Amino acid sequence: MTSTTACCDFILFGTLGDLARRKLLPALYQLEKAGLLHATTRIFGVARDEIDAHTFKEKVHASLIQFVGKEKVDNVVWERLAERLHYCGFELSQLSDYSILSDALKPNNERALVSYLATPPQLFATVCKGLSEQQLISPHARIVLEKPLGHDLESSREINQEVAKYFDESQIYRIDHYLGKETVLNLLALRFANPIFSDQWSHNSIDHIQITAAEQVGVEGRWSYYDDAGQLRDMVQNHLLQVLALIAMEPPTRLDAESVRAEKIKVLRSLRPISHDNVREDTVRGQYGAGFVGDKRVPGYLEEEGAKPASKTETFVAIKAHIDNWRWSHVPFYLRTGKRMAQKRTEIVISFKPQPHNIFHETMNELPPNRLIIRLQPDEGVEIQMMNKVPGLGKQMQLKPTTLDLSFDQTFENQRIADAYERLLLEAIQGNQYLFVARDEVEHAWHWIDGIRNAWIQTGEEPKSYPSGSWGPASSVTLIAHDGREWDDDF
Amino acid sequence: MTSTTACCDFILFGTLGDLARRKLLPALYQLEKAGLLHATTRIFGVARDEIDAHTFKEKVHASLIQFVGKEKVDNVVWERLAERLHYCGFELSQLSDYSILSDALKPNNERALVSYLATPPQLFATVCKGLSEQQLISPHARIVLEKPLGHDLESSREINQEVAKYFDESQIYRIDHYLGKETVLNLLALRFANPIFSDQWSHNSIDHIQITAAEQVGVEGRWSYYDDAGQLRDMVQNHLLQVLALIAMEPPTRLDAESVRAEKIKVLRSLRPISHDNVREDTVRGQYGAGFVGDKRVPGYLEEEGAKPASKTETFVAIKAHIDNWRWSHVPFYLRTGKRMAQKRTEIVISFKPQPHNIFHETMNELPPNRLIIRLQPDEGVEIQMMNKVPGLGKQMQLKPTTLDLSFDQTFENQRIADAYERLLLEAIQGNQYLFVARDEVEHAWHWIDGIRNAWIQTGEEPKSYPSGSWGPASSVTLIAHDGREWDDDF
Repeated sequence: MTSTTACCDFILFGTLGDLARRKLLPALYQLEKAGLLHATTRIFGVARDEIDAHTFKEKVHASLIQFVGKEKVDNVVWERLAERLHYCGFELSQLSDYSILSDALKPNNERALVSYLATPPQLFATVCKGLSEQQLISPHARIVLEKPLGHDLESSREINQEVAKYFDESQIYRIDHYLGKETVLNLLALRFANPIFSDQWSHNSIDHIQITAAEQVGVEGRWSYYDDAGQLRDMVQNHLLQVLALIAMEPPTRLDAESVRAEKIKVLRSLRPISHDNVREDTVRGQYGAGFVGDKRVPGYLEEEGAKPASKTETFVAIKAHIDNWRWSHVPFYLRTGKRMAQKRTEIVISFKPQPHNIFHETMNELPPNRLIIRLQPDEGVEIQMMNKVPGLGKQMQLKPTTLDLSFDQTFENQRIADAYERLLLEAIQGNQYLFVARDEVEHAWHWIDGIRNAWIQTGEEPKSYPSGSWGPASSVTLIAHDGREWDDDF
Repeated sequence: MTSTTACCDFILFGTLGDLARRKLLPALYQLEKAGLLHATTRIFGVARDEIDAHTFKEKVHASLIQFVGKEKVDNVVWERLAERLHYCGFELSQLSDYSILSDALKPNNERALVSYLATPPQLFATVCKGLSEQQLISPHARIVLEKPLGHDLESSREINQEVAKYFDESQIYRIDHYLGKETVLNLLALRFANPIFSDQWSHNSIDHIQITAAEQVGVEGRWSYYDDAGQLRDMVQNHLLQVLALIAMEPPTRLDAESVRAEKIKVLRSLRPISHDNVREDTVRGQYGAGFVGDKRVPGYLEEEGAKPASKTETFVAIKAHIDNWRWSHVPFYLRTGKRMAQKRTEIVISFKPQPHNIFHETMNELPPNRLIIRLQPDEGVEIQMMNKVPGLGKQMQLKPTTLDLSFDQTFENQRIADAYERLLLEAIQGNQYLFVARDEVEHAWHWIDGIRNAWIQTGEEPKSYPSGSWGPASSVTLIAHDGREWDDDF
């Protein structure tokens, strides 16, 4: 599986863009530093700007200084990386210009190429065609696609169909950076390497699951772009459903793309549709108003720069999802994501069923259930909440819920947590597809999301306002309280 | 249940003996320090020495200095404790002398008394009779008995019958100090307050259980006393079987003596008898020879001071025990205890069944099973061994077994771990019997132990020599290796 590493070159389309500067170039730097790039691997940056190689390298270096940190950029590593860097400046929409890239790749243009498209999806088809016309798509070529992969099922199909004209599904690497997070990978280790968890991973032992992705930021100057999407499409369709699929999937036979994707697709296909019948009970739409995040006063969504005051786009969504299969019967998955929330926090909470009988009732009226918490932000980590006896003579049997860091090992203490993009770039370069999203996954996810959006339209469900710095509209609390449960907010 | 604390006095028979000096007087000091002794509670030391109250207090103070630690004995606490101290010097075997005690208790001799018999069991009957003749046994009186409670079923019955003439079973507190250990109590909390464990506590999830009580010391100048007992009677009959019963029992309905004892008795009654048919396969007897403990050369058991060179007493025993009930079908309990072992270590290891299928075989050929480790010595603690992903980019999915301290909570960090005797004295004073051993438990345990001893006699099984500083005879390894398992020695 790793044999193709040797002869691959890496092309970064959109090399001067925000994602490249913040994430992809720093990730390449870290791979270089870790010695994980093959000696002969070359990196070609492509963008429309007419700059020379020297200026390009200066820009890359500046990005590293800014996003890796000045004191952290090692000069020796940088020089090794700079050796690999090439720049091709041309208009991506101009098919004839792709010869510039082809020429630059000579004399090694039979090598397998990994093309990373950090560009708007409108350009995907053209880039594919450009590569194809220059005969740059060998059977070993790979293409890495960034979201958004469409804005609904239909547009997503169109993009996928266009790319499929040039690349086989086994050559297409669709990024969802949540899948590259250290903690998400550790979730797989915990689930499948520890019988104490794998034996309990079902409705028999689990009461419900919460997935929260809360941001403190607002739209950050991207009002128009964001307003076309909204939180459901921007966060739930991809990140939250991917995480849900990994948690809920049956154990795959092997840890390869075919096995893992097959299980994830089964989960996405088992999502109970949300229609006009249940959309009011099972979803909440919200839109942030003015408020305080920390002690900073912030404007409401409709008062942001460039806002259309009549916008009905949601910046918050809560969903009670059901997976209609054997494993998850009657185990709700509560999803929640929003902007301008009280905290920046992304976490999965697995709540186990309560102890059926309490022999400690004299000292503790109600035993809190065990909870497994997989935290992706702000600090990655896996914790378990369990009950322990308080040491000492105090009461006969005084108990206390304690939180234990399951991923903590002192030998790991000084280990740097790799950014998700480092992991995903490495896997793409090595040709391991299991952390990337299959076409069927994208399309099944859109199918479910489109159902919710259509139901909102049919029922005229408008977003409820919530103050910035809160946990969303009050009806989000009601959604879960209705089942006798509550959101895991008390951290 | 705690209402009787108010009006109880505490009598310590054998107050100048080793146990009292090392453990009981320091425990009373700690209870005093923690404010857990009622303001009017008096403490009467009884021994044969003719000393006055002042000298007694000096001796107690000296014991505290020696065993609590000089800098740790707080003068204010000591003065409060000293106020309570009284001394009665008389020959315990002399019934008429008990009037001395009765007089000393006036004018409050209608109070409930807690009599702690830190004396040889031969004196139990006389002390009971002495208390009885002085009308010191009210319905609220309690008697606390130290081991050994006999040396076989018959002698144990005799002792129990004698005491039962004067005290109801509900007034009798038989000490097994393992039941007072913080970690053993935390085992109950872990088992019964955490569904992630309680749901897995059976043959469905558990592969086998190990209970090890290893000492580095030898007989320590008590050769004759020890030689009459041997390791099976000295350690297995009480401590190891009590621990086994707590681990294996069904969840009790309530955390009271009646419920807990009923479940423990059921376990002891379900122990599969070991007879001449299976004693060679399922037990190992050992006797230590000369060797090195650490870097200190030590003599063999037969070369110790006062040794009879023909002694066939075992100083090591390993047993494969089965509990023939529904929960523990086909789950062996491997017990092991010995003197002059490689380490001082007392621990329970719950080994869960291995993961049925390994999706990480590319990076790890075999997944180590999860293990729950309850360590009583040298450092009390509860740990779990589980598999985690090694952070970082290294291999695709590199796993590592990590050991997590389940009982660790930072809020507990500076909490002193109470000695087992503090806990047990407190429970006896408060009239909570659930951490003490019922008559039926003692007798069922002896019944099983007598079966093993008889089988050894019938088959002529003599102890195998093992070098001091080892983990016992090689056949102890064979005993467990025969089942494809191994002792948990690699710490």
